[in-house]
Amino acid sequence: MRLGELAERLQLEVDGDPDFEVTGLAGLEDAGPSDLSFLSEASYLKSLAASHAGAVLAPRGLEVGRPCIRSLAPYADFGRAVPLFFSAPPAPEGIHATAVIGDRVELGDEVAIGAYCVIGDGARIGARTRLYPHVVLYPGVRIGDDCELHSGAHLRSGVRIGARVVVCNGAVVGSDGFGFATDANGRRVRIPHRCGVDIGDDVEIGANTTIDSAHPGHARLGFPEARTRIANGVKIDNQVQIGHGCSIGEGSALCAQVGLAGSTVLGRGVFMAGQSAAKGHIHIGDGSLIGGATSVTSSVPPGAQILGVPPGLERRRWARIVAAWKRLPDLLVRVRELERRMGPDR
Amino acid sequence: MRLGELAERLQLEVDGDPDFEVTGLAGLEDAGPSDLSFLSEASYLKSLAASHAGAVLAPRGLEVGRPCIRSLAPYADFGRAVPLFFSAPPAPEGIHATAVIGDRVELGDEVAIGAYCVIGDGARIGARTRLYPHVVLYPGVRIGDDCELHSGAHLRSGVRIGARVVVCNGAVVGSDGFGFATDANGRRVRIPHRCGVDIGDDVEIGANTTIDSAHPGHARLGFPEARTRIANGVKIDNQVQIGHGCSIGEGSALCAQVGLAGSTVLGRGVFMAGQSAAKGHIHIGDGSLIGGATSVTSSVPPGAQILGVPPGLERRRWARIVAAWKRLPDLLVRVRELERRMGPDR
Amino acid sequence: MRLGELAERLQLEVDGDPDFEVTGLAGLEDAGPSDLSFLSEASYLKSLAASHAGAVLAPRGLEVGRPCIRSLAPYADFGRAVPLFFSAPPAPEGIHATAVIGDRVELGDEVAIGAYCVIGDGARIGARTRLYPHVVLYPGVRIGDDCELHSGAHLRSGVRIGARVVVCNGAVVGSDGFGFATDANGRRVRIPHRCGVDIGDDVEIGANTTIDSAHPGHARLGFPEARTRIANGVKIDNQVQIGHGCSIGEGSALCAQVGLAGSTVLGRGVFMAGQSAAKGHIHIGDGSLIGGATSVTSSVPPGAQILGVPPGLERRRWARIVAAWKRLPDLLVRVRELERRMGPDR
Repeated sequence: MRLGELAERLQLEVDGDPDFEVTGLAGLEDAGPSDLSFLSEASYLKSLAASHAGAVLAPRGLEVGRPCIRSLAPYADFGRAVPLFFSAPPAPEGIHATAVIGDRVELGDEVAIGAYCVIGDGARIGARTRLYPHVVLYPGVRIGDDCELHSGAHLRSGVRIGARVVVCNGAVVGSDGFGFATDANGRRVRIPHRCGVDIGDDVEIGANTTIDSAHPGHARLGFPEARTRIANGVKIDNQVQIGHGCSIGEGSALCAQVGLAGSTVLGRGVFMAGQSAAKGHIHIGDGSLIGGATSVTSSVPPGAQILGVPPGLERRRWARIVAAWKRLPDLLVRVRELERRMGPDR
Repeated sequence: MRLGELAERLQLEVDGDPDFEVTGLAGLEDAGPSDLSFLSEASYLKSLAASHAGAVLAPRGLEVGRPCIRSLAPYADFGRAVPLFFSAPPAPEGIHATAVIGDRVELGDEVAIGAYCVIGDGARIGARTRLYPHVVLYPGVRIGDDCELHSGAHLRSGVRIGARVVVCNGAVVGSDGFGFATDANGRRVRIPHRCGVDIGDDVEIGANTTIDSAHPGHARLGFPEARTRIANGVKIDNQVQIGHGCSIGEGSALCAQVGLAGSTVLGRGVFMAGQSAAKGHIHIGDGSLIGGATSVTSSVPPGAQILGVPPGLERRRWARIVAAWKRLPDLLVRVRELERRMGPDR
Repeated sequence: MRLGELAERLQLEVDGDPDFEVTGLAGLEDAGPSDLSFLSEASYLKSLAASHAGAVLAPRGLEVGRPCIRSLAPYADFGRAVPLFFSAPPAPEGIHATAVIGDRVELGDEVAIGAYCVIGDGARIGARTRLYPHVVLYPGVRIGDDCELHSGAHLRSGVRIGARVVVCNGAVVGSDGFGFATDANGRRVRIPHRCGVDIGDDVEIGANTTIDSAHPGHARLGFPEARTRIANGVKIDNQVQIGHGCSIGEGSALCAQVGLAGSTVLGRGVFMAGQSAAKGHIHIGDGSLIGGATSVTSSVPPGAQILGVPPGLERRRWARIVAAWKRLPDLLVRVRELERRMGPDR
């Protein structure tokens, strides 16, 4: 595709030869001479100098030494260019004959339901929402407009989902929370989790992620009902676990394998890197950043940046450090003793 | 509902105005003036004083200053009250016409099988057990009475399950263990895992949890057969991984994202917090408590309380500590040298 | 089964009484007097001395004091003996009447497709490949010969799989990567992931494992296309997460709950123990070994052995060490001060 046509389709402006022929897309490091790449800011100019990219998406005013398309958000516009080179895989259309649809189900216009989906009684699915094959909605589930639910997604009763939400394969929403009490006979008994999950608009839920339902003990002041809550624009990666009664603030992002124990509250715009975790009943402030594999065990103020995992080290070096580390309390005593004997510094 | 009626339905006694009208349930912190809450012990009296809860479930003899229901196990009884305010979501009934049921399958009385379930040849399902839609039982699986299997649960051949077991959505039981050997040509070859999994009574298995099958190398003295074993009353949260040949003792609880490597043996009443893990071929004693995200790498005596993950700290503070920590072996040498030079303390 | 017959069926040689009757298989520790066990090397002779095993698979030349079968790879041959004692569970045969098979699907000879499988348009399945019930292939998926896909496996468009690959239950391959950009209006927008996943021959993918699709920014020099890549012979355990654009070298093994962030490159023969993780955009050299739960945050040379998680310790001891550890930067200063005051060592 000619660079000029590409710019036009993205509604952006060319800077340089509009007839330059773009044959593919790639990152700076790996792009070839007919690829379009992108750089978001001046700090990438060094990578650009070493890059074979024939053309780039770049911010206005940045001298890039090759044909380019000017963009206010080069990476996002690179993303918008993807569909021009890679066609969308086919999606389900219409209602497949094998779909089992319960009583009193409400379907919006142009809903698509794939083979072997099971839609429980009283469920409601918004306009243009697409269910790939093998999606199961328990009775009463509500889904907004323009959502996409992939095969193997299972939504339990009490789940309500907003608009433009993507639920990836194997995700489970509204499963029983892990809440037990000990009864008068000393037996562990289940607290029924019937208060459900609320998911806002523009949320993405990764493959095999699990989000548990709440029980009434998870009521929260200022909300009319006890529910597990995922606010608008939250992005959740694969294999994330969200316990009963959690509340995730708008625009937060949870990377793969993150785990939130029950009743964790995340503010807006929190970022949790892969495998990190939060103890239950704590509050993580707006805009906080939690490092990979870090366990957060007490509440954290807005804007905090929390780390908690030592970097991996070579086996022998690691062993020496751990051995010394186990003797730390003793070392502290020995230094205190040395200071005592040395007396005050005059 | 009147407090008196509520108490009667729970078979407990009112202490205070039986005509007090309860409109909902909530935890102490968030309860409103017409909610019923609970407190388990005197240590919560401070929270109670600050609570707007109109009524509470409370132990006998505790002065609570508002209408209450007396209970030996207030949290468990709060759980028993949930169904009085939140009706149970509908469950499958009867055998759905689309269920594919193999040869020589034995079904107990009042078994329910949802749409698109697949029941392999020779499987056996106990009385009143309910399978939600999209449950797959491989040939020969055996399930006891009064179990509940949610959609997307997959049970492989060799799995035997007791009574009153709940298997949540997407859980996989009896999958191939991760066991390979190197053959005479240096190729990695699979050890067939055909010895299955035994699950006792009153077990709960969380969403997307995986429990692997054993092979004959996992035989254990005192048991007639090599199997992965989950004893009675074990509660397993979401996304837990239990490797081949593990044995989990009665009443143990494994929180979300826990991982047990192969042949780990847990005693009775072990509690493993979220994301914790055990190395294979070790024994964790009865009643042990393993902290969140902690890796247990050697056997642990009964009653041990094991921690192993530093708390997350502010980025700069963390960086300073890790930098110092990497120099610990050197610091040890320096302190030893100072002590040598200081000579004996006289 | 007589030991002689067993040896013959394994095409190995007996050393000792060929009429010795073997009734079962077990590890050394737990074997009974009529069980066949195995030992791989002389270091196990101590365990052998304490073992009740009636017979063993053992390397040539090792004196074992009981009837044995000589083997170059005793553990692998123990694995080959398993099917002689434990019959294979039944597998699907033929094309089940309920399978929904799209247009232009190509099926090799003797393909088996279980109940309720859904095969998207244009998919291709190699000879003798078996799909258990409830497998979903999105349009265009390609699978080689002699593969085995278990129930609940979901393969998205753009996935290509080699020969003799096993995909366990609930595994998701080709799901959307976790890649977002911020657009000119400050909104987080998805980068479409349409570049797919390539999986080589003899790969195993564990239950509920997730492997994400790539986007064009994941192109890599020397490869014609941007794809997530799993090379031949890679073994992946349960609940592993492999991010978009990762590349896993031949013969590597990833244990349960491992997480790889996007664009991680693993060399050949890398071993990552359970719950370990790699930051994105790093390279882990050939033959490296990453310890359990260890986070690797920078590139690692070939043959490295990396550890990064302190062993769990008794609660009080742990608390003392962590308290001291938080004071480490201060301790460093105090030791420096002591050294200064002590002056040079003469």
